[in-house]
Amino acid sequence: MQRAVEFVFDVGSPYSYLAYHALPAIAQAAEAQIVWQPILLGAAIRASANHSPFEVPAKMRWVEQDLVRCALSLAVAFSHNAHFPVNTLVAMRIATGLQMRRPDNFPAWVAAAFRAMWGEGRNLADPAELAVVIGEAGLDDRELLALASDQAVKDKLRSDTDAAVSRGVFGAPTFFVGDQMFWGHDRLDQVARSLAQRGGER
Amino acid sequence: MQRAVEFVFDVGSPYSYLAYHALPAIAQAAEAQIVWQPILLGAAIRASANHSPFEVPAKMRWVEQDLVRCALSLAVAFSHNAHFPVNTLVAMRIATGLQMRRPDNFPAWVAAAFRAMWGEGRNLADPAELAVVIGEAGLDDRELLALASDQAVKDKLRSDTDAAVSRGVFGAPTFFVGDQMFWGHDRLDQVARSLAQRGGER
Repeated sequence: MQRAVEFVFDVGSPYSYLAYHALPAIAQAAEAQIVWQPILLGAAIRASANHSPFEVPAKMRWVEQDLVRCALSLAVAFSHNAHFPVNTLVAMRIATGLQMRRPDNFPAWVAAAFRAMWGEGRNLADPAELAVVIGEAGLDDRELLALASDQAVKDKLRSDTDAAVSRGVFGAPTFFVGDQMFWGHDRLDQVARSLAQRGGER
Repeated sequence: MQRAVEFVFDVGSPYSYLAYHALPAIAQAAEAQIVWQPILLGAAIRASANHSPFEVPAKMRWVEQDLVRCALSLAVAFSHNAHFPVNTLVAMRIATGLQMRRPDNFPAWVAAAFRAMWGEGRNLADPAELAVVIGEAGLDDRELLALASDQAVKDKLRSDTDAAVSRGVFGAPTFFVGDQMFWGHDRLDQVARSLAQRGGER
């Protein structure tokens, strides 16, 4: 049995981007496997009756400052995204589709999508831009857009999102270590402690 | 000029309680003064069009677990409050009134109110309980309830809350170092860094 930490994310979520950069070192230190769980955050927020910070102007103004400070303290390149909130439906269907059909290509896509969104402020909801980013990941845009149109892939992203909500997810990033849930990149210290104490064996 | 960190709080806010315990060591290390700013959190949340976690069941379930973990990591005694959310209007009017008229008694009241709410899970919206807690602070309940009924005190809590919202406050605890705003006890590391870098001179 290996220790595991589940990472529930959407590439459209800037705090998921910060966690994406911070989690590997924590997992490695605990000799834990990262279990990647793509979801559609907008759907999870609606299904849990939560609200995006984007809906609260004062909160959004603070979030913009906070992201810069958090990225700085993590030494992660960060750019505001003028297109936020971006519809990441196709981008996340690609992530799910790659997990199902071509898992070896999943890491390259997640890296390229996160970098485009939050390192470079690009609009993944724009089909032309999306195709360019797929190319930058070293992947074929026609193949991946066909994959994203596959009904089984669409259904899987939806059922994975619903399953996450059923387990208590209301935002992203969310982490699970065993049955313990942690919300926010700012809880990664607790994730690390939980991995050390409980192990999260699967 | 002395360095200063402003602490915007409501004793009904459990994360304000955690910050109340963690902030003094941070301020002391930075040789900074704590500027206490009582507000009525419910009014600030409404005025900023924000939402209490209490309105989102999945978030509230997570908050209950998170508070226990955060309190444990800070070594702060913590008790769930079955009465949450508690109407802290009178308790916060007392805090404001003491700041205005009897500042020497302000720390004892804040300590007693936070302890009653989040160390002992008591209901500060219950007039009888409130009177007992005032007594435990070594203060006179008749005097303080009269103070809380003073129109100037009521107006001050309201105008202080409005002023906080005007400065961008949408939740508690919130900290200001100079013009930099930080939301959440989990940003106290950034508060410490800001105090070290910028000084927050007033």
